[in-house]
Amino acid sequence: MIDFLSDTVTLPTPAMRQAMFTAEVGDDCYGEDPTVRELEALSASMTGKESAAFVTSGTLGNLTALLAQCPRGHEVILGDQSDLYNYEAGGLSVAGGVVLHPVPTGSDGSVPVALLRGAIRDSTDYQCAPAAVIALENPHCLSGGQVLALDYLRRVRELADQHGLKVHMDGARIFNAQASLGIPVAQIVEHVDSLQFCLSKSLGAPYGSMVCGSAKLIDGVKRYRKMLGGGLRQGGIMAAAGLVALNTMVERLVDDHRRAVWLAQAIHELPGVTLRFRHIQTNMVFFDVAGQGNDAFLRALQARGIRMGVLGDGVIRAVVHYMIDDQALRDTVAAMAAILRADASTSTATLEAR
Amino acid sequence: MIDFLSDTVTLPTPAMRQAMFTAEVGDDCYGEDPTVRELEALSASMTGKESAAFVTSGTLGNLTALLAQCPRGHEVILGDQSDLYNYEAGGLSVAGGVVLHPVPTGSDGSVPVALLRGAIRDSTDYQCAPAAVIALENPHCLSGGQVLALDYLRRVRELADQHGLKVHMDGARIFNAQASLGIPVAQIVEHVDSLQFCLSKSLGAPYGSMVCGSAKLIDGVKRYRKMLGGGLRQGGIMAAAGLVALNTMVERLVDDHRRAVWLAQAIHELPGVTLRFRHIQTNMVFFDVAGQGNDAFLRALQARGIRMGVLGDGVIRAVVHYMIDDQALRDTVAAMAAILRADASTSTATLEAR
Amino acid sequence: MIDFLSDTVTLPTPAMRQAMFTAEVGDDCYGEDPTVRELEALSASMTGKESAAFVTSGTLGNLTALLAQCPRGHEVILGDQSDLYNYEAGGLSVAGGVVLHPVPTGSDGSVPVALLRGAIRDSTDYQCAPAAVIALENPHCLSGGQVLALDYLRRVRELADQHGLKVHMDGARIFNAQASLGIPVAQIVEHVDSLQFCLSKSLGAPYGSMVCGSAKLIDGVKRYRKMLGGGLRQGGIMAAAGLVALNTMVERLVDDHRRAVWLAQAIHELPGVTLRFRHIQTNMVFFDVAGQGNDAFLRALQARGIRMGVLGDGVIRAVVHYMIDDQALRDTVAAMAAILRADASTSTATLEAR
Amino acid sequence: MIDFLSDTVTLPTPAMRQAMFTAEVGDDCYGEDPTVRELEALSASMTGKESAAFVTSGTLGNLTALLAQCPRGHEVILGDQSDLYNYEAGGLSVAGGVVLHPVPTGSDGSVPVALLRGAIRDSTDYQCAPAAVIALENPHCLSGGQVLALDYLRRVRELADQHGLKVHMDGARIFNAQASLGIPVAQIVEHVDSLQFCLSKSLGAPYGSMVCGSAKLIDGVKRYRKMLGGGLRQGGIMAAAGLVALNTMVERLVDDHRRAVWLAQAIHELPGVTLRFRHIQTNMVFFDVAGQGNDAFLRALQARGIRMGVLGDGVIRAVVHYMIDDQALRDTVAAMAAILRADASTSTATLEAR
Repeated sequence: MIDFLSDTVTLPTPAMRQAMFTAEVGDDCYGEDPTVRELEALSASMTGKESAAFVTSGTLGNLTALLAQCPRGHEVILGDQSDLYNYEAGGLSVAGGVVLHPVPTGSDGSVPVALLRGAIRDSTDYQCAPAAVIALENPHCLSGGQVLALDYLRRVRELADQHGLKVHMDGARIFNAQASLGIPVAQIVEHVDSLQFCLSKSLGAPYGSMVCGSAKLIDGVKRYRKMLGGGLRQGGIMAAAGLVALNTMVERLVDDHRRAVWLAQAIHELPGVTLRFRHIQTNMVFFDVAGQGNDAFLRALQARGIRMGVLGDGVIRAVVHYMIDDQALRDTVAAMAAILRADASTSTATLEAR
Repeated sequence: MIDFLSDTVTLPTPAMRQAMFTAEVGDDCYGEDPTVRELEALSASMTGKESAAFVTSGTLGNLTALLAQCPRGHEVILGDQSDLYNYEAGGLSVAGGVVLHPVPTGSDGSVPVALLRGAIRDSTDYQCAPAAVIALENPHCLSGGQVLALDYLRRVRELADQHGLKVHMDGARIFNAQASLGIPVAQIVEHVDSLQFCLSKSLGAPYGSMVCGSAKLIDGVKRYRKMLGGGLRQGGIMAAAGLVALNTMVERLVDDHRRAVWLAQAIHELPGVTLRFRHIQTNMVFFDVAGQGNDAFLRALQARGIRMGVLGDGVIRAVVHYMIDDQALRDTVAAMAAILRADASTSTATLEAR
Repeated sequence: MIDFLSDTVTLPTPAMRQAMFTAEVGDDCYGEDPTVRELEALSASMTGKESAAFVTSGTLGNLTALLAQCPRGHEVILGDQSDLYNYEAGGLSVAGGVVLHPVPTGSDGSVPVALLRGAIRDSTDYQCAPAAVIALENPHCLSGGQVLALDYLRRVRELADQHGLKVHMDGARIFNAQASLGIPVAQIVEHVDSLQFCLSKSLGAPYGSMVCGSAKLIDGVKRYRKMLGGGLRQGGIMAAAGLVALNTMVERLVDDHRRAVWLAQAIHELPGVTLRFRHIQTNMVFFDVAGQGNDAFLRALQARGIRMGVLGDGVIRAVVHYMIDDQALRDTVAAMAAILRADASTSTATLEAR
Repeated sequence: MIDFLSDTVTLPTPAMRQAMFTAEVGDDCYGEDPTVRELEALSASMTGKESAAFVTSGTLGNLTALLAQCPRGHEVILGDQSDLYNYEAGGLSVAGGVVLHPVPTGSDGSVPVALLRGAIRDSTDYQCAPAAVIALENPHCLSGGQVLALDYLRRVRELADQHGLKVHMDGARIFNAQASLGIPVAQIVEHVDSLQFCLSKSLGAPYGSMVCGSAKLIDGVKRYRKMLGGGLRQGGIMAAAGLVALNTMVERLVDDHRRAVWLAQAIHELPGVTLRFRHIQTNMVFFDVAGQGNDAFLRALQARGIRMGVLGDGVIRAVVHYMIDDQALRDTVAAMAAILRADASTSTATLEAR
C-alpha cells in the first residue's frame, strides 16, 4: 500500500523503535520520567518558549492550551476552515464553556486581520461574549497546507495586544512551515503565546503533541491535561520516539515538500484532473477528478494499492511523508494515468454504444 | 423624549397597570399562579402548540428551549446575523456545552437551505460535533426586520426531518410576522418544534417571554428555567400584563408597520440619508447618514429629544412601537431635516471659509 | 386557607400593589429603570456593601454570585444540608463547570470550621480541584431556621483569608437573622464577599432577590445575569414591591418569630407530636407526628383548610409569615389537636375491634 | 530504590519492552491498529462485556464512561472516599456539567445501599438534579484496598434498576479483586454497565486503561475520547504492553497480596506503628507512625533508599507490586525497625537531657 491518506499513518522508524525499546522511564504523573522531561526541554528550546508539555494528541494540545487561556464564557476567534473548528468535536465548548467564533478564511489560509478585528465583540456589553484568544493554524491544512506569512503573524499580534487577547497557534505541522520558509520555528512562533505541534504527523512519531509557551501557561496546560485524563505514567516510551522525531525527522521535511511539488506538477498534467491549489508550499496536494468523480477515482486507486482521502467538500488530498519515496510517486502517477485512460475509453465506449 | 431605541423601552399601558394591580396570584414555583397558567394556556392556544412556559426574557426562552433539545456537545446551526449568536453572550456554550455553528445569512434574513445543509456535520465521525437543532430568527432583526417566507420554513423543516434535527424559532417579534403576512401565527410556526416570543418587545409588556412547544419540551424548559434561576413566585403580576399584551396589543401592530413604512419613505427623501433596507416589512427602519456620520447625527437628534440607536456595524435603527404616534413621526422627520440642513450649511460654511 | 407551606406563598401587600401600580419604570437592560436603581442602592446601603443587583430569584442570585467568584473547575465548599446543594438543581456544575464539595452540617446549621478546613484540597496537586469559595446559609433552613453565630462567621472569614478563598452567604432570609440577633444585617454580613437575600420570602414581595457585594462583584453578577436570561426590561414594577418590602416588612419579622415560638410551644404540648428543633430562632417550626404519620396528618390538616409542607427526610415544616396572625395560629393548633384526638380514638377503636 | 509509592511507578517488563518493539501498528484514529483492536477484544472477553476501548488513563476511562451515561445536569452518586471524587480534579463537572453527589463510605470501602438510596433525589422535582449513575470503586483504595462483596454489588444493581440508573465501576485494580476473591473478573463485574480498569497500575504496563461495556457504551466512550483529545495514532505500541500485562501479569497478583499480608504483619509488630486496616485483601498496607510522625519517618526511609507515600489524611501507604520481591520486603522491615529504634533512643535522650 502506498498510503497518502495522511501523515498520521506513518509507522515509527527503526530508530524510534530502538529508542522506545531502551528508553529510560519513570512515572510522569510525579514528574519523574527523564525522557519526557528531555522531550519537553528540547521542544521548549527549539520553539524558543520557556516551557513545554507532552500531550496525547493535537486535539488535547489545542484544548489544554486554550482552556488555560480562555475563561468560561469568553470567545476563541478562529478560522472557519480550521481543524480546531471543524475536526475537534467542539470540545472547547463542552469542556470549557468556551464560545467558538469562526471567521471566514482567506484563500491563503490566513484569516484577514480586518475580519479578526471585526469579530472582537464589545467586552463592555453584557450581551456579548468577550474575546480571549485568537487561534491560528499554520500551515493551514484545508487551504492546501499553505504557510502563514511572518508579517501577517506580526499584525495579528498587534491586534491582539490592542485588545488584550492571547494568540494561539495550532502548528500541527509547524516544522513544515519552517522547512517552507527556511526560517527557524522559534522565529515563526515568536508572536504567539501558545503553540501546539504534533510529533505524530509529518515527523513520523507514533504518538503525541507538544504545547509550548510560558511556564505559567504550561502549568495550566498540565493541570487541564490531568483533569481531562491525559496524564501519563511511563510516558518516556512514547517521548523517546518524539525525541527521535525532533532530532532526525525535521531536516528531511524539505524532501517531502520537493516531492509534493513534483506530484502536483505531474497531476496537473493529467487529463481531467484539477489542482485545487497550484502553489504547493508543504507536503499536501489537493485535487478533483472530472468524469468519474473523486469517489470512483479513489476506489480505483485503492484497487491498485494506493490510498488517498477526501476532506472538507470532498476534495481529494494526497499527503506526502517519509514513507513515500520517489518510486512511490512515480508508481502513483502511472496508476492515476492508467485509471484516467481507462475512464476516458469507457466514456468513449459508452458514447459510441448509444 | 420620542424614543425609537427599541420596542423594549415601552412603558406598560394603563390597562396593563390596572391588570397587574388586580391580578390574582399564587406561588408559580408550586404551579399555583392562576394568571401565569392563563397566560401559558393562551400562548399555547394562539401559537397552536401543546404547551407554553412563561420565562423572564427572550434570552432565557431561547436558552431553555435549546438546552431542552440539544444534548451536550451537539451543535445549534444558526444565522451569523442572529440575535442568538450575537447578543446572548454565548450562554448556550457556557450553560450547555452546546457548540454554536453560525452560517452566513442571506439578504432576506433567512439562512439559505443549502448552507444549512452544508453545515450539518457527519454525525458518524467522532471528529465532528453532530447537529441537533436549526435555529431561525423571524422576523430577522439585523436584516431590517424582514419576515421569513412560509415556503422557506417548510423547506427547513424538510431538511431537519431528513437529518433528525429539531427546529427552533427565535420569534421575539413573531406577531409582527403575523401582522406582516396576514397569516395566523399558528400557521407561521407550524413547522417548528419550539418557539420563543417576547411580550416585552413590540407587544409592550414590561416583562417576559413565552416558550411554546410540545408538553415534553415545556417540561424540559421548566426544568432548565428552575436550574437557571428563572423560577417565579407570584409571577401573575407580570403575567397579567402579558395577557393584556396578547389580548389587546397584537391587532394594532399593523399601525406600527404602516408608520414604519411612512417613516422609511420620509427618510428616503432626506438628503444624505440612505436606507439600509428599502422594503419595510415590520416595525424597524435602518439607515445611514452621510456627511456628519451616524454618531453625530444621533447626538443631534438626542439634543432635540429624539433617541435612536445603532446596531451591528453602526447602522442607525429606528423602532416604531405603540408609544410612537403619527405626530411623533412628523416631529421626528422635521427634526431630522433640520439637522441635515444645519449640517449641510455648516459644510458649506466650512467650504466657503477655506 | 391558612398556608404554612412557605413564606414564598405570601401575596403582595396592598402597599406593594399600589407601589407597583405607580412605579416609575424604564428599560433596565439599558440601566434606565429608576426604581430598580433605587432598590439596588437601598439594598447595598442596608447590607453595608458597595453595590447590589436585582435578580429574578434566590437561585439566580446564588448562581451569579458564585459564577462571578468561582472559575471553571474550582470548588464551592458548602453544607450538605444547604438549599444551594439540595434544591438548586446543580446549576453551578452545569452552567459553570463548578465542583460542589458538600461538607456535613452541624446541628446548629453551621458547617464546623475544622470540616471546612479539611475540605480545602491541595491546590498545587493537579489531581485536585482547588477551592475558590465557601458558601454559608444563614439562617439555615434545614436546621430549623437557625442563625449562624457572629463569631463563627468571623472564624470562617479567617479560614478563607488563610487560603485565599471568597465567602458567599445564601441569606435568603437574612433579615430574619437580623431580627433574631438584634444586630444590623450589615454587621452580620460584614465578613462575606457576597450576599444573596430574597425579597419574596419572609419580606412578602412577589418577586426577586438581591445580590450585594463589591462593585466588581456586581459587575460580574450582572454579566452572568444577562447571559443566563435574567435581564429585565421594566423591572421597576417588581422592584417597587421590593422597596416596600425593605422599607416596611423588615421590622415586623420579630412578630413572625414570636408567633413561631408560640406555635412551637403549642405543638410541643400536643400528644404524639415531636418538635425536630426545640429552640426556635426565626419563623419556622419542624415537627413529626407519631401514629398516623406525617403524610396522613398533613392531609387531615389540608381538609381543614390548613396547609403545611414536608422537607428533606419527610419532616413537617410550618413557616410563619405576615399572612399568619394570632387567630390563624390558634385555629391551627385547635385543628391539630382535633386531628390527633380523632386519630387516637381511631387507633383505640381499631384496637378494640380486634 | 525500593519504591512502594504506588504500583503506577513500575517499569515495563522486558517482555513488554520486546512486545512494544515488535508491535504491529496502524492509525487507531482510523480504526486500523491491529494491536489496539486485539487488546480491546481481549479486554472485552476477559471482563465478559460486549466491547472495550483503550484509553490514556484511568481518569479518562472514568470520565468517558460516565459522560457517555450521564446527561448534563444529572448526578453521579459516588463514595466520598473514592478516587473519582477526590483525585480526578472534578473533570466530570467541568467537561460534562455533571453534578457529583458524594455519600459517606463505610469502613469496608462500600457505600451502604441505604445511603445510596437516600442520595437519589426526586427526579420529578425541578429543584433537584436527577441521578443517572452510581459509581463504585473496587477494590477501594482509601479503605486499604478492600474488595467489594459480590452480594453488595448485586444489591446496588437492584437499587439502580429500581430507579433506572446505570452502575459504573472504577476498577482501576479490578484484577486484584479477582485475585483476592478467587472469582473471575467477569463475574465480579457482571452487574455493572461500565467498567474501567488500569493496565498501568498493578499489572505493570507503562500506559493506559480500558473501558468495558456494551457496544453502544463504547461508541459513546470513543466519541468522548476523541473530543477530549484521547485519540491515538499508532497506539499499538502501548497496546502491546497492555496485552503482555493482561496475558502474563494477572496470575501473579496473588504474590503481591501474599507479600502485602506479610508486610502488614511485620509492620504490626513494630513498636509505635499502627496499621490503619488490619485485614489486608489486596496489595496495599496503610499505617501511622507515632513519635516522630509520618512525615519524618518517610524522610528517614527515603534516606535509606525506600520510598512510601501519604494519602488522604496523611496516612502512610505502601503498595506492593511486581518490582517488590521478598528480599525487598525484608530489607524494608529491617530499615523501618532501625529508624524506629533510633527514634526511640532519641526520644529517650531528649527526655534525659531535660
